[in-house]
Amino acid sequence: MVEDAERHARMALSCVVEGGDLALVGLLERYAPEEIWRSLRTGTAETTWSVRARALQLSAIDAVARRHGVRFVVPGDDEWPAGLDDLTGAEPVQKSGGAPVGLWVRGSRPLGQLVGGAVAVVGSRSSTAYGDRVAAELASALVLTGRTVISGGAYGIDASAHRGALAEEGPTVAVLAGGLDDAYPRAHAALFGAVAASGALVSETPPGEHPTRRRFLTRNRLIAALGVGTVVVEAAVRSGARNTVSWATSMNRLVMAVPGPVSNSTSWTPHRLIRDQQATLVTGIDDLNELLSPVGESWVDRPEAARLLDLLDDAQRRVYEALPARGSRDAGDLALRAGVGVREALTALAGLSDRGLVLPSEQGWRLGPRQDAPVPEGAGPSRRNGGSADEQAGG
Amino acid sequence: MVEDAERHARMALSCVVEGGDLALVGLLERYAPEEIWRSLRTGTAETTWSVRARALQLSAIDAVARRHGVRFVVPGDDEWPAGLDDLTGAEPVQKSGGAPVGLWVRGSRPLGQLVGGAVAVVGSRSSTAYGDRVAAELASALVLTGRTVISGGAYGIDASAHRGALAEEGPTVAVLAGGLDDAYPRAHAALFGAVAASGALVSETPPGEHPTRRRFLTRNRLIAALGVGTVVVEAAVRSGARNTVSWATSMNRLVMAVPGPVSNSTSWTPHRLIRDQQATLVTGIDDLNELLSPVGESWVDRPEAARLLDLLDDAQRRVYEALPARGSRDAGDLALRAGVGVREALTALAGLSDRGLVLPSEQGWRLGPRQDAPVPEGAGPSRRNGGSADEQAGG
Repeated sequence: MVEDAERHARMALSCVVEGGDLALVGLLERYAPEEIWRSLRTGTAETTWSVRARALQLSAIDAVARRHGVRFVVPGDDEWPAGLDDLTGAEPVQKSGGAPVGLWVRGSRPLGQLVGGAVAVVGSRSSTAYGDRVAAELASALVLTGRTVISGGAYGIDASAHRGALAEEGPTVAVLAGGLDDAYPRAHAALFGAVAASGALVSETPPGEHPTRRRFLTRNRLIAALGVGTVVVEAAVRSGARNTVSWATSMNRLVMAVPGPVSNSTSWTPHRLIRDQQATLVTGIDDLNELLSPVGESWVDRPEAARLLDLLDDAQRRVYEALPARGSRDAGDLALRAGVGVREALTALAGLSDRGLVLPSEQGWRLGPRQDAPVPEGAGPSRRNGGSADEQAGG
Repeated sequence: MVEDAERHARMALSCVVEGGDLALVGLLERYAPEEIWRSLRTGTAETTWSVRARALQLSAIDAVARRHGVRFVVPGDDEWPAGLDDLTGAEPVQKSGGAPVGLWVRGSRPLGQLVGGAVAVVGSRSSTAYGDRVAAELASALVLTGRTVISGGAYGIDASAHRGALAEEGPTVAVLAGGLDDAYPRAHAALFGAVAASGALVSETPPGEHPTRRRFLTRNRLIAALGVGTVVVEAAVRSGARNTVSWATSMNRLVMAVPGPVSNSTSWTPHRLIRDQQATLVTGIDDLNELLSPVGESWVDRPEAARLLDLLDDAQRRVYEALPARGSRDAGDLALRAGVGVREALTALAGLSDRGLVLPSEQGWRLGPRQDAPVPEGAGPSRRNGGSADEQAGG
C-alpha cells in the first residue's frame, strides 16, 4: 500500500521533471519522493524544477486526468508492472533512463496484469503495405496466443499493430509521448479510444503536456521495458525503432526483427539489426513462440502443470526430453537420443501431441508453442542463440 | 604439365565413376589415376566400374566433346581452378565429396582465371519476380565489380543470375549436372550458348550423360568450391540451395543469403539460414563488397598497392587505420581515435576518398569497396562476424 504522501509527491514530480531525467533517478536512489518534492517546493534554490514546482497546480492537473478517466500508478501499487523495475540500473541511452516516477494510465484493467508476457511491435511511421500487413497479422496472432500487444500509437506500423490486436478483440497497450487528455496524432483519437477499451493508454507525461522529441525517445524505454520482447517490423535508416531497440538491449530484452524486400528502404533497419546480431530474425508467430517463454508464470509455480509430466509414461518422458529447446528433430533422431525404438517414439509423440506438448513441424517434431510442462535443459525465456544444430540441409 | 596417360586415365574414370564417389576419392589418395584405370580395365573383378570400364569407348566420347567445343581439364593444368582443391579433405555431404577427377569445360577463357574471386548465386527454380530481380541486379553488380557469377543453369534464380551477368557482358559460369553436348533444361540452349561465349559451361559428367538427382547434388559441390562465396537468393523449405550451402560451409566458404518478404515461401530458406547463423544477411552488392576480399591477389603480393599507403600523409594514415573493418564510423569518432582534430580528419578523409580508400556512408565513413591497400587490423577475406559495434542507435 503506497502512502498518499508518496503518491502525491510522485505525481507532482511527474509534472515538473521530464521523464527519464537521470538527476531525478539519482535523487530517488537516496531520498524519498516526499523529501525531494518538499525541498523543491519549499527550498530557496532557483532551479527549473523548483520554479515549476512552485507554480504547479496539481489538483487542476489531477482533475483533468480524472475527467479523462486517467489514473496515476506508482511503484508499490498492485498494478505496477514488474518489467519497469528493469529500467533501474539499465545502461542510460542518450543520457536518459531509469524507472518512471509514476505512470498516467487510462483503461479499466490493472496495467501489470495487462502487460504480463506482452510483446512490443514497433516500426516505421512511413510503413509499406507489406509492413502494415505483417504487423497486423503478427499482432492478431500474439493476441490469439494470449499476449498483449504494446506499441507507440503512431502512424504506420504502430497503428497496424494496435489494429491487428483489436481485430482479435485485443488487448493492446499504447504508450504515448504526450498527456492522455489529448490524442497525438489527432487522427488516432478513435483508435486510442478502442485501445483504452481493450487494454490501456499509458504515458509518463502528465495531462496537458504535448509530446516532444525528447519525450518520444524516453517513451521508447517504457515500450521496451513493458514488453518481454520487442519486434521491429519496418524501419528506415533513421527510425525511432532503433532507439527502442537500444533500450530493449540495455535491459537484456529479446529483440526481434522481421525481414522484408531488400528493395524497400524500410527494410534497412531490420536487416541491419539482424546482420549485426542485435536482433533475431523472426518471420511470424511460430518464431516468436519458439523464442518467448510461455505466457504467465513459469511451470515451477504451477503445480498442476508440473503434474502433467507425471502423467507421461517412460517413453513419452524420454522422447520429450530428447526434443531440442529450439528447432525440430525428426522421429528417428528422437528415438536414437531417447533410447527407444522408432515405432515406440512415434507412439510417444502421438501421446505428447495429444497433450499439446509437441507439434509436428516441417523438419520433424518440436516443442509445442504453449509449454505447460518443464522445458528441456537449455530452454528458457531469454535464450537468443539456441539454434537447432541438428537440421539436415537436404537435397 | 600433365602426362597424356594421366589425362587419359582421368577422362576415362570420369566416364565410368559417378562424380563425388568417395571410393574413387579414397583410391586417388593412394594410387595414380593410370594405375586405377589399368586395374579396372584389365582386372578380373566384376564390379560396376570394371564392367563399365571394359565397355567404354572413350575416343567416341572425346569426339563428341570436341565436336561441341568441350575440353577435359584436369588437376595440374594451368587452368585448373585452385578452389576445387578445397574439396579435398572437406567433410562429405550425403556420402559424397572430394575434388573431381577432371572437368568437362566449354568456353574459350582459361577456367581458373575466369573463376578467380567468383561468387555463386543460387536459389529456387520457382522464383518470384522479386527474387529474379534481386538475383539479376546482384549478378550485374558483381560483374561490374570484376567478379564472375557462377550458377547452376536452372530455371528461376539460376537463370536470372546468368542473365543479370550477361546484361553487363558477363562473365558467368554455369555448372551443369549433365553432359555439355546437350542442354538441360532444353529451353536454356540459347542461354547456355551465351554463357559459354561470355564465360564457361562446366560439368563433371561426360558428354552423352543425362543429369540425375545425384548428379545435381554432387554438381552443387562444384558451384560451392568454384566461388569464394555463395549467395542464396530465394529458396523454399526443400531446395537444392541448402545442399550447396552445406558444401560451402564444409569448405569454410562465405555463405550469404538475401532476405525477402516473409509472405513468400521462397524466403523460408534464406531466413532460416540467417536466423541459424549459417549465412550472413546481405541486401546487395555493398554488403558483398564488405564481406568479400578484393578481387585478385591480396595487397601483400602487390607492391604497387602497398606503395599507395606510402603516399598518405600522417593524418591520412591515422584516420585510415581508425576505420572499422566493417561498418562505418563518423568523422568525430575517427578524429578521436586517430588523435587528430575533426577538421584535420575531414581533410584526411577527403584525400583518402580521392584515392578510393574510403567511402562516405549513411553513418559516416567506411572502407572503400575495392581496397588496394592493406586492410586495417581485424579485416580479412573470410571474416564473418565483424559487425560494427560503434554504431549509435539514433533517435
